[in-house]
Amino acid sequence: MEIKANAGDYVSVKLAKKEIKGIILESYDKDVILVKLESGYNIGIPKENVFEINVIRKYKEEKKEYKIPSSKGKPKIGLIVTGGTIASKLDSRTGGVKALTDVGEFAQFYPGLFEKYDIKISSPFMELSENMDSGHWKLIAKEAKKMCDDKEIKGVIITHGSDTLHYTSSVLSFMLKNLNKPVVLTFSQRSIDRASSDAELNLECAAKFALSNCAEVVIVGHASESDDCCYALRGTKVRKMHTSRRDTFKAINCKPIAKIGGKVEFLEEYNVGNQNIEKLELDDSFSNKVALVKFYPGQDPGILDYYKEKGHKGIVIEMTGLGHVNSGWIGKIKNCVKSGMIICGTAGTIYGALNPKVYSTGRELEKAGVLYLKDMLSETAFVKLGWVLGHRNWKGKEKEKLLENFAGEFNEFLAG
Amino acid sequence: MEIKANAGDYVSVKLAKKEIKGIILESYDKDVILVKLESGYNIGIPKENVFEINVIRKYKEEKKEYKIPSSKGKPKIGLIVTGGTIASKLDSRTGGVKALTDVGEFAQFYPGLFEKYDIKISSPFMELSENMDSGHWKLIAKEAKKMCDDKEIKGVIITHGSDTLHYTSSVLSFMLKNLNKPVVLTFSQRSIDRASSDAELNLECAAKFALSNCAEVVIVGHASESDDCCYALRGTKVRKMHTSRRDTFKAINCKPIAKIGGKVEFLEEYNVGNQNIEKLELDDSFSNKVALVKFYPGQDPGILDYYKEKGHKGIVIEMTGLGHVNSGWIGKIKNCVKSGMIICGTAGTIYGALNPKVYSTGRELEKAGVLYLKDMLSETAFVKLGWVLGHRNWKGKEKEKLLENFAGEFNEFLAG
Repeated sequence: MEIKANAGDYVSVKLAKKEIKGIILESYDKDVILVKLESGYNIGIPKENVFEINVIRKYKEEKKEYKIPSSKGKPKIGLIVTGGTIASKLDSRTGGVKALTDVGEFAQFYPGLFEKYDIKISSPFMELSENMDSGHWKLIAKEAKKMCDDKEIKGVIITHGSDTLHYTSSVLSFMLKNLNKPVVLTFSQRSIDRASSDAELNLECAAKFALSNCAEVVIVGHASESDDCCYALRGTKVRKMHTSRRDTFKAINCKPIAKIGGKVEFLEEYNVGNQNIEKLELDDSFSNKVALVKFYPGQDPGILDYYKEKGHKGIVIEMTGLGHVNSGWIGKIKNCVKSGMIICGTAGTIYGALNPKVYSTGRELEKAGVLYLKDMLSETAFVKLGWVLGHRNWKGKEKEKLLENFAGEFNEFLAG
Repeated sequence: MEIKANAGDYVSVKLAKKEIKGIILESYDKDVILVKLESGYNIGIPKENVFEINVIRKYKEEKKEYKIPSSKGKPKIGLIVTGGTIASKLDSRTGGVKALTDVGEFAQFYPGLFEKYDIKISSPFMELSENMDSGHWKLIAKEAKKMCDDKEIKGVIITHGSDTLHYTSSVLSFMLKNLNKPVVLTFSQRSIDRASSDAELNLECAAKFALSNCAEVVIVGHASESDDCCYALRGTKVRKMHTSRRDTFKAINCKPIAKIGGKVEFLEEYNVGNQNIEKLELDDSFSNKVALVKFYPGQDPGILDYYKEKGHKGIVIEMTGLGHVNSGWIGKIKNCVKSGMIICGTAGTIYGALNPKVYSTGRELEKAGVLYLKDMLSETAFVKLGWVLGHRNWKGKEKEKLLENFAGEFNEFLAG
């Protein structure tokens, strides 16, 4: 039979023994119709099984109007919108998620934020975070610097896709030198127009933290699956650890900086009052000639030559255990180091610190010139390597800079 | 001054204001002597600060004799020794860890095991696990098959370095078809001659599990930092998650199969009595033309061409979030798939399952031909891809085989 309903239409579908109601979704298989049921589940029905389809309500894109309320007397927060799920809505035609088209639409979805605070909003671009690179990082850093320089602004919120958020939080930790107020990255795992969305609480807690007396780059997100409080996690020691859970970001090798419920409760050991009085400096040099390689058993070390021949200046190797790769790699590593490349090691286990002294492989790799980055996360190491190599004036001092604790990327007890 | 002591000697060192005692370690810096103190700490002393060194006791390698006790009436367990820390001892000359040279020496270090059980021991090789590849995996699988075919043997223990143990447990789960008894991999994070060693409890629990009525490949190791019980973890759903903690192996996306304290307590939901009555089959084909690539922001998709030009037949991409890479990769992925390569996706977050339907990037990547491996671990996916592509008779059915749940590599509720 011919189907006369279109994606987005609310329909009733007659089958042999029952009738179902739902929204037609775009289907990749022309012989199957895809229906989103009221329960939220999608089902696929072979067209040959359908007796009749009646359109109950035609698809119409909703357009809400939202007037941003007066800012008089409210604390001022900078808001940088960069895209991602937190700036997206459900597309009823695909059943998937679609980006909001402008910042005005963003305000419409988060009226609570604009009612409580005087929000200065800007958006350097709208991009899914898997598509970001160092060019996007620099644009965000520039925008954050501008916001931090505005004396009226108490703190800055950056909304961002969650996929690569920990890379951005790391690189901003390095690029924003002498930070003078909180820079808070936040995200959502589910878009705001879904009942289970984490966007509202994440933004609410991000705003509370943005008004705190601290000066770090942090990620703020759900502390657990419940919808009651968030954690603030240090930008250089955080990682996305679950594909879909709302408490996906975890502090790695350290504790969260603060818990944010009714108010911001800092961790006992945390030294809050470290806002810089010097002028914030934008230190955004970055070399793209860096790579991150996850080692796996039997891997050909030719991958090192590949990057060497491409003119790469540095490689982070995600190693096994305390810092090992196949000992057949040692020769190639020596060659790379001799040619001037920086070869760093990080822990593929994610948790824990490297120690090259325990096993012969580690001792030989260290002798071959591998720089062991202790308890630094692979993702943080990758962006730090690009940032360090971007500084021409640090030529010859790269290793020293990589081991310097710029933004809490090393735990002090381990780095000491 | 000239130092007349050698590495391994127990000495007294006179400094300006104090005298210290300890064992001389091999030092990489000729101007520094390295001393292991009785406290276990190492200190480096510039030679110029040393007034005098007196050798109290010269280094002598200890050779203990150990007679394996009679096996009469004891349950029989197969033991395959492959190297790693669990088959290593402290080297007093380097302060590091050194492999035991033969299996007899292994028995000497673990007398408890040989007193309780009738151990049939064999060692196909002695290797650190970072140096293993598919050749080693096949040798282990062959040895395990032999042991499983011996009707008197109740179960098999494999001792192995911890670094890549989860790759081996995965590949054995696929290679040992119709498994008829427990195959238990175990390890240690600290060598047996250290007070904090986890080797003894791990082996003891591995032996208990080897006598159980189950037929799976598992990893047995400390359940927590305490020295009281272990977990048995499914071979395809386990990962090393800490560089040094004793409870480093964690069940990913599922629960442990059993807790092993005084006895083996299976998880309530676990169906134990699944020992096969068919003959165990060694299914050890493996293609090395596979790679594992961790995606990071800004990464050049040229890495795909590199592997294609090397004649690789398949690549596992560790993706961001629900299964994304930079959308600039889509063209190259299409080319690879067209040329006959299998491109699979796994979750870089480690925890959670992929879902390509939620975001446009995922939908486009799926259309380009990426095979989404749901909640399968990257490491498991890598060895499964090599194993599937090793089967010439599966030509054309590779995707179907990759999605078949051979050894619990998919959680059923997700795979269904």
